[in-house]
Formats: sequence, C-alpha cells, structure tokens
Amino acid sequence: MELWYSEPHTKDVKFSIKVNKQLYSAQSEFQRIDVFESAEFGRFLTLDGYMMLTEKDEFIYHEMLVHVPMSVHPKAENILVIGAGDGGILRELAQYPSVQTIDLVEIDEQVIDVCKKYLPQTACGFDDPRVTVHIADGLKYVRHAENQYDVIIVDSTDPFGPGEGLFTKEFYGNCYNALKSDGIMVNQHESPFYEEDRLAMQRAHKRIVESFPISRVYQAHIPTYPSGHWLFGFASKQYHPIEHQQAERFKKLNIPTKYYNHQLHIGAFCLPNYVEELLADVED
Amino acid sequence: MELWYSEPHTKDVKFSIKVNKQLYSAQSEFQRIDVFESAEFGRFLTLDGYMMLTEKDEFIYHEMLVHVPMSVHPKAENILVIGAGDGGILRELAQYPSVQTIDLVEIDEQVIDVCKKYLPQTACGFDDPRVTVHIADGLKYVRHAENQYDVIIVDSTDPFGPGEGLFTKEFYGNCYNALKSDGIMVNQHESPFYEEDRLAMQRAHKRIVESFPISRVYQAHIPTYPSGHWLFGFASKQYHPIEHQQAERFKKLNIPTKYYNHQLHIGAFCLPNYVEELLADVED
Repeated sequence: MELWYSEPHTKDVKFSIKVNKQLYSAQSEFQRIDVFESAEFGRFLTLDGYMMLTEKDEFIYHEMLVHVPMSVHPKAENILVIGAGDGGILRELAQYPSVQTIDLVEIDEQVIDVCKKYLPQTACGFDDPRVTVHIADGLKYVRHAENQYDVIIVDSTDPFGPGEGLFTKEFYGNCYNALKSDGIMVNQHESPFYEEDRLAMQRAHKRIVESFPISRVYQAHIPTYPSGHWLFGFASKQYHPIEHQQAERFKKLNIPTKYYNHQLHIGAFCLPNYVEELLADVED
Repeated sequence: MELWYSEPHTKDVKFSIKVNKQLYSAQSEFQRIDVFESAEFGRFLTLDGYMMLTEKDEFIYHEMLVHVPMSVHPKAENILVIGAGDGGILRELAQYPSVQTIDLVEIDEQVIDVCKKYLPQTACGFDDPRVTVHIADGLKYVRHAENQYDVIIVDSTDPFGPGEGLFTKEFYGNCYNALKSDGIMVNQHESPFYEEDRLAMQRAHKRIVESFPISRVYQAHIPTYPSGHWLFGFASKQYHPIEHQQAERFKKLNIPTKYYNHQLHIGAFCLPNYVEELLADVED
C-alpha cells in the first residue's frame, strides 16, 4: 500500500508527498490539524490540508522571518509574534541576547500542543522565560498595543480561513501603532508565481505600503510551499533593510544558521523583474 | 475525465500538472519526447518524462543562463551552445549586437523539429543568420575546438541519459580548451535540495572547480524544476562574475527581461549557508 499527501497548489497543480503514516488528525475550534511522517521531509504539519512546515525545510522560513528584521534593528528588545504556534520563530529569536520579552499570540492553542508533542525540533522555544503565550486573535490583540514593540513578526497562515484578518489594512495599521518609533514588521507574503497567491500578495503588499513609510519585499527558496518561490514583507518606520543592515553585529552573534547569512540578506531583496512589476502595479 | 502529468522529484515526491491534451509523443533515436498543453503552464516539453520547459516559466531558466555570462564578458562575439534544442538560449542571445557567431550543438534533431512546431515562443532563434546548428554529441564536438569561443553555454538535460557526458571532467576540460583566454562557461547545475540532485550537483561542481581558475554558483527560482531551487555554474578563465559585471552596459542594451536584472545578478550569487557548505564539501 502507498499513502500520499497531496496539496493542490492551484486547481491544476498538485504537490504530493509519500507518507509513512498519519501521526495526528483532529478538528480544532478553528481548523483541521494534521501531522504526517514521511521519509523525504520528516514530519510535517498541515492546517486545513495546507502545508505549514516540514522538518526538512522549515529552517528556511523561520530563519528568513527572524534574522532579516533582527539583523536590521539595532536593539530589538520587545518582540511581538503573531501566529507561529509551531514555535519555530521562538527558536530563532531565543538566540538574541538583546531580546527581553516575546509576546506570542496564537489563536489556536491546539496547534501549540500538537507541535510540542509531534514537532519538538521546531516547538522548542516555549520554555524560554522571556516568552509569554497569549491564546488570542492576533487581529484583536494588536488593537490594544501602542508604542510597545521593536519588532513584530507576522507568521500567519494563508489569507483565507483563520489567518484572513492578518492581511487587512486594519491589522497593518494597528501593527504600525503597536511598534515603537523605529519599529519593524515582517510578514509572510505569499508567492508571486501562481495567479491566486499573486493576487493575495499584491493586495497585502498594497495595504502595507499604505501603512508604513518603508516597505520592501524579500524572497527565499522554500521547496514545500507553492512554486517554491516565497516572499516576505519588510515594513519599517525608520530602518532601511539594506542600508541599516548590521552585518558585523550579526556575525559576532555566531548564530548557527543553515540558510541565512549577511550576504544572502542583501541578495534576498534583489527581486526578479516580474515580481518588481507586480509590486509596482499595486503601488500606483 | 482528468489527465495529469506527474514527475517524480524523488521516489517520495511528485509534482503533477493537469493536462488538457498531449500534443506530441514519440521515441527519437535518443529519448522519448512529449509535448503537453495545460491551462496553468501553457505548453510544456518533457524528455524521457522529465520536465524540460513550460511556456509559463522557461523565461527564468533561459534568461539566467544567457544574461549572467553575457553581462560579464566585455565583448562576447563567438558563442557555443550545447544542448538547447528548444531554442530558448538562441532567443536570448540574439538580442546582443556583439554576437557574431553562435554554434548550437544538439544531439537530437527531433527535439529541434518538435520545438519549432509546438513551442514557437521558445524556438524562435534558429533563423538568425549568426546561428549554425550542428546535430552532434556535445561531448565529442568540443574535443575539436580550441581557443575559439568567448562564451560556452551548456544547456544540458539531467546528468543521466543522453546528457550524462556533459557532466564529466573530460567535457569541462575540453570546454576550457575551446574557450579563448578570457572565456566563460555556464551550465545548468541541478538543485541542492533533494539528495539525488544534490549529489550530481556536487560531483559536477567539483569537476568544474578542478578545470577552471574561477568557479562560482548562482541560483534562481524555477517553479517547475524539482524543489524550485535551481543552480547554475559560472566557470571562467579571467572574469569574476560580480567584480567584472558590466551593469551599465547591460542596461543600455535595453533587453526586455522578465526575470534578470543587474541587481538580481548580484543577488543570485548570494547562496544559502547550506548550499555554500555543500559546494565547499567537494572543494576540499
């Protein structure tokens, strides 16, 4: 017998992984949660059937969401993380001695519990004394924060289902207010390649551009996400992602990264023409 | 009814595209050739079942193989292209007024005929008077060339089947001899992500490093190739790919690219740590 997990990347494109077994499956209050075990990718987590992370390539996504803003902000002490119930963002953040507090806001407690049990490689940062977990809707949580955070990391699901509110203009505006006067927000920005992802990406990008004075997009190779070409948004009140990059400081921290390095930081902001055009289209 | 093309990216990973119809299928002297039509990717060509190009994303591969070396070499007049029976490399090369002769060496004439008929968007450069098509084995062809070419572009299939010889030390050594004293060779370099592709990539890279004084690797996002993370090799007798990049000259040429630009040129050489480590492993 063969067991295959398949994710439709569009209605005409499927990505399939041979599975040894299904380790977990349940419907939470918000979404269906599944964990599978595979030879190629190790264990992997899906929400409502969509790929969230695999043990093999999650390092790329988590390193790129954390080390890019953390290498730019000169002294990031108070961090807000939205989503990220799998803990991968915490694992990377924990390596910065400058960090004093991390508020993690996850809507679905069951995701945290499942990841702690089945994905301990990723969900290893919850015990850090600097971390406070808030089981809450990120959209509502940021409404009440003001001038409080140095960095906000939005590790959302896709712009439909429980994560939808995290792609709205209201949310980005509230993140702006929740940041200190030199704060930085990063978010996962979908993919430019397939029409459906692209439209969501353009809409979200337009709203960020309208909310922040500095707004750039960077990219990474994430093989298990649709098209493998994934974008991230860098939105900032004061610091430019390249001009204010603190490459020397990052090197001195000796953080063992498998994807990120200070040169790749620069390269990640060099986008293909067609992506630049998609982003410019919505900036007009 | 539904018709799906599936390519195994590893024995445990499949990438599948819904197909409207199969336009062509034949066994040539060297390989099985198929052309399909799909809603998502337009028409696409497979050889022995492996994805070669789709109308939707072939621009990425062809731009990156042509414009990177052509933006570095200060005066590329005589070009050798190995493989590339689909014509995409010719289409991009044709835009350089400096080019005087292009020798295209394709082992399988049937690939050229099929692409001219079914993939005219790609196979549009064969009528350029500067082009001479040689139906021959690239491995044997370069044995007889010496000090003749400014740029060699190796647009091979994978390192098994008909393309196998194009990943050997003999071949790279002969390319070195076929180049003038300031020549550049580029090749498709497989992917770093899946074990099988990675080993082929490391082997090929080691052989290139042994054959050329300057050897670097660059990357692009190619959604229809395994993992979407594709590498290219830049091997050179004299010019460094970044230090000798002629960004201003490229801009003045006004070549309409959808992926390549002079900043992305630099970014493409900024590799993730894990890829740098794979490449260093074989350099020892």
